Amino acid sequence: MSDFMEELRLRTERINEDLSTFLPEEEGPQRTILTACNYSVENGGKRLRPIFMECTYELFGGREREKLLPLMAAIEMIHSSSLVHDDLPCMDNDELRRGKPSTWAKFGVDMGTLCGDALMIYAFETAFKSKLEPDILSRAVRLLAEKSGIYGMIGGQTVDVELTGSIPDPDTLRFIYEKKTAALIEAALMMGALASGADEKGVSLMEEAGRDIGMAFQIRDDILDVTSTAEKLGKSVHADDRNAKVTWVTFYGLEQAEEDVRSFTERAVSAVSLISQQSFLEELIRSLVDRSF
Amino acid sequence: MSDFMEELRLRTERINEDLSTFLPEEEGPQRTILTACNYSVENGGKRLRPIFMECTYELFGGREREKLLPLMAAIEMIHSSSLVHDDLPCMDNDELRRGKPSTWAKFGVDMGTLCGDALMIYAFETAFKSKLEPDILSRAVRLLAEKSGIYGMIGGQTVDVELTGSIPDPDTLRFIYEKKTAALIEAALMMGALASGADEKGVSLMEEAGRDIGMAFQIRDDILDVTSTAEKLGKSVHADDRNAKVTWVTFYGLEQAEEDVRSFTERAVSAVSLISQQSFLEELIRSLVDRSF
Repeated sequence: MSDFMEELRLRTERINEDLSTFLPEEEGPQRTILTACNYSVENGGKRLRPIFMECTYELFGGREREKLLPLMAAIEMIHSSSLVHDDLPCMDNDELRRGKPSTWAKFGVDMGTLCGDALMIYAFETAFKSKLEPDILSRAVRLLAEKSGIYGMIGGQTVDVELTGSIPDPDTLRFIYEKKTAALIEAALMMGALASGADEKGVSLMEEAGRDIGMAFQIRDDILDVTSTAEKLGKSVHADDRNAKVTWVTFYGLEQAEEDVRSFTERAVSAVSLISQQSFLEELIRSLVDRSF
Repeated sequence: MSDFMEELRLRTERINEDLSTFLPEEEGPQRTILTACNYSVENGGKRLRPIFMECTYELFGGREREKLLPLMAAIEMIHSSSLVHDDLPCMDNDELRRGKPSTWAKFGVDMGTLCGDALMIYAFETAFKSKLEPDILSRAVRLLAEKSGIYGMIGGQTVDVELTGSIPDPDTLRFIYEKKTAALIEAALMMGALASGADEKGVSLMEEAGRDIGMAFQIRDDILDVTSTAEKLGKSVHADDRNAKVTWVTFYGLEQAEEDVRSFTERAVSAVSLISQQSFLEELIRSLVDRSF
């Protein structure tokens, strides 16, 4: 295993352990919803958003990881909440998530709906556990809300849902990618920068880098849906085709999509290297693009 | 019209105007969700939570109402988001809310689900627009999250959903009332107190008062479901009976329920009068109990 892969494994493991310390105890009259929340968060995942936040924090010289941890947990909870609601029958109607029953399939549609709500709110409760200076913490939490909400992730998700089955114009396609996928990755990088005391210029550079990473990541996802096998991917392929979904690949073609992934990635890597040379973060960005899974 | 009723009307009108300044412009690719959010918030309502917050703020001597406004708007958005999700087919399956199509009935189940999410997150974005001192603002927003989440409103809602059709024990019945209804009223009073610089003792007194008001309010609701007419209430009566729902009235009987409403109310009024004599807030608490609508 390469040094990079080993470090990624260790960081992911460490985040999984830390994340579990922020999950609620499964007790009291409301234990069903607490169990559903924990089930949804502990159902695996690459933990990319907390890893990006952590690496950006380090990039800007942050050294008090324990103050960042609540924010890392919070962004992963927001991400989980969006997956829980995406899987609902009224949305993607997915009974499986990473090979296991999705939250609604296991706990019922009512609990699935409430669980997404619960995780969304609990993300904010968790973020406030950080011992960061109140002014910085307020700005970080506000940013998390803005990037998750109607002008961020949820905004992108609603347009995606609305347009399913019709052909979007290029601006709208880009809007969906930037909001639905990139916005929360932008938040991860920006919050990491903010928490380590970066100035406005640094935070805004990380916003651009996050957007580029998100775009590259999502387009790679579309490419894999066409070119990979279910075995490698661990989920069904050609889902976009079956859902008659217009993606970057169907819109611009495979060749252009590959080229776009490369150029978004290079832009992100050079933005990040402007701050300092931190080979792990650069390798992480490249690895997302070169992945075949 | 009594002075009290006139003041209540004026306060409600003023809050409706202020609230509308915090709602998003209905433009951009995501305008459907923005329209759904505004539709849900503007669909009437007593605006009790912002009114309680405002009155408690005044009770503790707060005089910069414009700094409180974003928090007043935020708590109403959280309340609206909970109604939007409560109405969903997987929950109460209500096609009407205050005589108009409920959000999902008008915009579809997918948009209804996303709209509840969007309002929940937008509440936090809105709260951060307050110019209160960062430390106080952080505490107020954190409180809003705690009282809305798994240990507050959503916790109560999940237990209520889970128990529908079965008979809860007295502790569980009380848990549902305290969390589902009272928690957000507690938040309203506590946030008003916090924002005007109340000390911990004052905030905690307002937590108790909020709980008592919430209990009285919900039990009165149960009583009205049995004793009122659809005409007076503006919604269908005997809904609890039709849904085979155990309420305070079916559990303890009408007489005991009436007595409990009175004692919860008196406790709340005396807690509030410990801080200062503010006749409007006291009258407001009493009016909720004496209401026949």
